[in-house]
Amino acid sequence: MLKFITGGVCAAEGFRAAGIHVGVKTHAVWKRDVALIVSDVECAAAAVFTKNVVKAAPIHVDRRHLADGKARAIIANSGNANACAPHGEEYAERMCAAAAGALGCEAGDVLVSSTGVIGQTINIRAIESGVPELCAALERSDRASDAAAHAIMTTDTAKKEAAVETVVGGRTVRLGGIAKGSGMIHPNMGTMLCFLTTDCAISPEMIKTALLETVSVSFNRISVDGDTSTNDSCMVLANGLAGNEPITARGPDYDAFLSALRALCIRLAKEMASDGEGAKHLISCTVSGAASEACAETVAKSVISSTLTKAAIFGADANWGRVLCAMGYSGEEFDPEKVDVRFASAAGEIAVCEKGRGLDFDEELAKRILTEHDVEILISMGEGDASCTCWGCDITYDYIRINGDYRT
Amino acid sequence: MLKFITGGVCAAEGFRAAGIHVGVKTHAVWKRDVALIVSDVECAAAAVFTKNVVKAAPIHVDRRHLADGKARAIIANSGNANACAPHGEEYAERMCAAAAGALGCEAGDVLVSSTGVIGQTINIRAIESGVPELCAALERSDRASDAAAHAIMTTDTAKKEAAVETVVGGRTVRLGGIAKGSGMIHPNMGTMLCFLTTDCAISPEMIKTALLETVSVSFNRISVDGDTSTNDSCMVLANGLAGNEPITARGPDYDAFLSALRALCIRLAKEMASDGEGAKHLISCTVSGAASEACAETVAKSVISSTLTKAAIFGADANWGRVLCAMGYSGEEFDPEKVDVRFASAAGEIAVCEKGRGLDFDEELAKRILTEHDVEILISMGEGDASCTCWGCDITYDYIRINGDYRT
Repeated sequence: MLKFITGGVCAAEGFRAAGIHVGVKTHAVWKRDVALIVSDVECAAAAVFTKNVVKAAPIHVDRRHLADGKARAIIANSGNANACAPHGEEYAERMCAAAAGALGCEAGDVLVSSTGVIGQTINIRAIESGVPELCAALERSDRASDAAAHAIMTTDTAKKEAAVETVVGGRTVRLGGIAKGSGMIHPNMGTMLCFLTTDCAISPEMIKTALLETVSVSFNRISVDGDTSTNDSCMVLANGLAGNEPITARGPDYDAFLSALRALCIRLAKEMASDGEGAKHLISCTVSGAASEACAETVAKSVISSTLTKAAIFGADANWGRVLCAMGYSGEEFDPEKVDVRFASAAGEIAVCEKGRGLDFDEELAKRILTEHDVEILISMGEGDASCTCWGCDITYDYIRINGDYRT
Repeated sequence: MLKFITGGVCAAEGFRAAGIHVGVKTHAVWKRDVALIVSDVECAAAAVFTKNVVKAAPIHVDRRHLADGKARAIIANSGNANACAPHGEEYAERMCAAAAGALGCEAGDVLVSSTGVIGQTINIRAIESGVPELCAALERSDRASDAAAHAIMTTDTAKKEAAVETVVGGRTVRLGGIAKGSGMIHPNMGTMLCFLTTDCAISPEMIKTALLETVSVSFNRISVDGDTSTNDSCMVLANGLAGNEPITARGPDYDAFLSALRALCIRLAKEMASDGEGAKHLISCTVSGAASEACAETVAKSVISSTLTKAAIFGADANWGRVLCAMGYSGEEFDPEKVDVRFASAAGEIAVCEKGRGLDFDEELAKRILTEHDVEILISMGEGDASCTCWGCDITYDYIRINGDYRT
């Protein structure tokens, strides 16, 4: 019943979007830098934010605006993180007020996000001046979702958007979203923004629950470089226009909705990992045979976060010793002599380590397998029957180039 | 009273060393790959090993050989880690037995270390055949220490050796050491080996205590890439030939010895950080004004471990936002609005962030400061009066090149 569809963040009934250039990004006048997502009617709303102690100003504002579990719009900019910068909360509030004024709603019904350089004053006048044009550009279309997806990109090389359709309580329900990632992505929400929309009818409590249960198995299972940012946010707006019986508790309807939300977010999370700064490979690490899912997750995250493993995959080097080593310092206790490791991709599959010992393997085949874009590291721990998959990317010369001089 | 001297691992009375090529490194016949360090008399001995769950075979052997707190020699090879490999413990024992046979002591008096590729069978015959030549090369000289220091190098670009002299109980006492680092170095002992010698008279219990109290403020305060290896070991042999009243408890003599051991190991730790794979900069991060030393250490480690901060220093980019960001995800609670950040080096010092907000600063001066080899990040937390310094390095194109294809 669940299927991927087009439309991105505008796929769900009653959502319009826009993305334009207003001048926050001064070095690139042709790049869109402000996005707006609006629902025709009020929504149940929820968000998850960075766990970093240093939080950007918009996050403090959003927490206040979400106190009632309701919202109607999201305004977001790229080019400046509005973190550790003068007038942070004041300007974040003014972004909400500008959008609210043009849309005819309360500032408290607007959520706000920023991404970009830390510590510099955001160009609030450029944003305020651009809001009329931004509102005029609002549409419910593929093109509008695409524009909004582009407007939140920083060092991303590709826009991230997806949408799914499912059935909840006999009604067709749509969920869509746009996201940005690249660099600083990490379990616990590295600089990523994700804006989700749905026409499902669901209470503020249950949309919050669904979001938490989704983030933990999607965005919190990816890693690019282990840095967690000051701005990470994942927000969802649910406007109820699908006309299903509102979800107010767990049950079959909630399960159907949760499955769809998870599928959507896992798709977006993998797009982020795949587009990690400079990345040439999407690395999936699946740990099975673990004593618990938590253990499998910790081990898989340790492997995809290992700089040495990432460098080995960049070099298409079947260096499974680094995989075992990263498992070993994950913090989980296990018996290395029960561990099997295989590498796999579209080019085939190869066993490289059995019961903690190296196997003689075909180095040529291993190289072919690891040369593919999507590479899998398959680990069996031989301890139990729990499993987990996490996603990351390789580390490349381009990562260094991009991050060696990001500000200038 | 404490001063640095020449002589390396042979600086202390009664210690000889050697380093030769026997053929463990098959691709580089001109590179030394086995080292031997021997005391003329039995020593009090202690060691600290990796916390990685996956431990190389020599570590299991060393734990048995150290059960009595005594040893006379250390044999070590580079080119093969003897980890996750067939016959691991058997071959590690045979390395000890070969050295013991040639030296006329018990195998249980010999400690063993390996570093290099994981998962491949170590060439034990090459090592056994080479032991007579290795013993014949033993000398107490700068040249011998140099040869041993070179024989344990893997991707290190420079040997690491140092020695200090101090006075304990009215007697001149010497301490020396060699080390290897590079890649995989991390708090909790990333693939680093360090072999320390001293002619101080000290009990096995107190040399163990001194080693633990030294490692915690030296090798455990450096980071190259966050990977902790299977082989990390730091060992110390104390032969008592300085003739001081043996140290058997805490007191002024112990304090004098501890100061010297710490100075020696901090020197070696900084050499390791400075020679991190591909590194162009030694980065020192000093956190002061912290609520506790543990907090200062956690925050400083988080900053020097941040891949984004490391990339910024590589690019001589005064991106203090990444410093604040790394502090924020360190796991410590603090008020970002009390934080000051400065950058310093031989070229000067510049304040870039005050009370959590960016300052207007001279970008040209900042660039000049960050272009020096030794760069300092100075953080004041405004919370208390504890402080700590940790050391790391930048991440460069060469790191990727070196680790993209290490095995072949």
